[in-house]
Amino acid sequence: MSNRLEPTSRNYDEKLQRILKISAKIFAEKGFHRTSVRDISRATKMSLAGLYYYFTTKEELLYLIQERCFVTLLQRWESGATPDMDIRTRIRVFAQNHLSFFCHNMHEMKVMAHEDEALTGEFQVKILVLKRRYVKVIMDLIRELQDQEGGKKVDLRVATFSLFGMMNWIYTWYQPKRDLPLPQLMEQMLRIYFFGVLQGAAVEVPWFDSTSGASSKETFSLWHNNQ
Amino acid sequence: MSNRLEPTSRNYDEKLQRILKISAKIFAEKGFHRTSVRDISRATKMSLAGLYYYFTTKEELLYLIQERCFVTLLQRWESGATPDMDIRTRIRVFAQNHLSFFCHNMHEMKVMAHEDEALTGEFQVKILVLKRRYVKVIMDLIRELQDQEGGKKVDLRVATFSLFGMMNWIYTWYQPKRDLPLPQLMEQMLRIYFFGVLQGAAVEVPWFDSTSGASSKETFSLWHNNQ
Repeated sequence: MSNRLEPTSRNYDEKLQRILKISAKIFAEKGFHRTSVRDISRATKMSLAGLYYYFTTKEELLYLIQERCFVTLLQRWESGATPDMDIRTRIRVFAQNHLSFFCHNMHEMKVMAHEDEALTGEFQVKILVLKRRYVKVIMDLIRELQDQEGGKKVDLRVATFSLFGMMNWIYTWYQPKRDLPLPQLMEQMLRIYFFGVLQGAAVEVPWFDSTSGASSKETFSLWHNNQ
Repeated sequence: MSNRLEPTSRNYDEKLQRILKISAKIFAEKGFHRTSVRDISRATKMSLAGLYYYFTTKEELLYLIQERCFVTLLQRWESGATPDMDIRTRIRVFAQNHLSFFCHNMHEMKVMAHEDEALTGEFQVKILVLKRRYVKVIMDLIRELQDQEGGKKVDLRVATFSLFGMMNWIYTWYQPKRDLPLPQLMEQMLRIYFFGVLQGAAVEVPWFDSTSGASSKETFSLWHNNQ
């Protein structure tokens, strides 16, 4: 019998999560191409042989980081949104999920923004499929919102990627000690997105709590379930 | 007498611009750290000795690309905005300038987003000074807008970097053949920013031409004076 952990065991999964977390930090700081598996070995305090039990190439490691992000985002979205929510609430839940995940995983955010072209072959295809599935969720929601609002429409791709742009850019400027706490940051960003910078601050909406941005139970749980 | 071009001559400047343009493309495609000066030499069809007349290290080359972007953006902003414009128009001119420059210089956009940490020492400091000066322009404009609007305010940094996020993210998704032409893209993005995705499409504003987005002379000239 082997002493290896079963890939399905809890211990295996915890170790892998730790490797992915530390690797994302190194990739974010040094760049994927300048990072060696030896760097990962040093930082994780694991032998090369021990590491290669979890991935076979550095590219697979990058794939596993990206895959984990999209799968987690999709799972959390699916468990967070319910059919009884109105369309604006569902968009808010999607954005909260995205923002809260990445604000707590800024290294992963940077790696996904910077290293999306480093994957090749099957790894690239699999991530592209996940990414498209994820983008389609919010695109469908925005389309539904537009159908309900009627009238002249903002281009769907501009509306979708403007939202991602606002949110994904955070890793370049956000300083926890200097900037708003995350719940307020998220609330203000969503206000700008829904109502614009001109009206955003003045609009009263029942689904925003403008004093804390995180007082509703649902929002609270979304913000604090981040591993 | 030397046969070298004078650094102030027109020919020198044109050659340098060409080197910067080609280098930005290679940095964007391969990444700064994986690009060698030999790659630049091959792509520009210039000898290494010829190249080193224009820069002494690869880092200086990256610095020159970033410096050129910020200096051009600032110069164009200063020549585009006039004191008689109202505050909303000035914000629009700033955003138009930023978007039109980067939509025509997407490689530079990617290099600035990805390689902002590759500069060190004096190069890093000089770019940081330019970047702060540039960010301060739009931050002061948004503050002025907020002072005029009164009432509850959106956080200034959130408002500023949300705008940059929307605009700077374009290089990750924009496909000229699939997406809106640039003037319309810019118009729709500014509508979302000012009025939000909910109201953006429905609002009638005199300074937007909702059919083409580029019919006013001023907008037109901004769009077509790119380099």
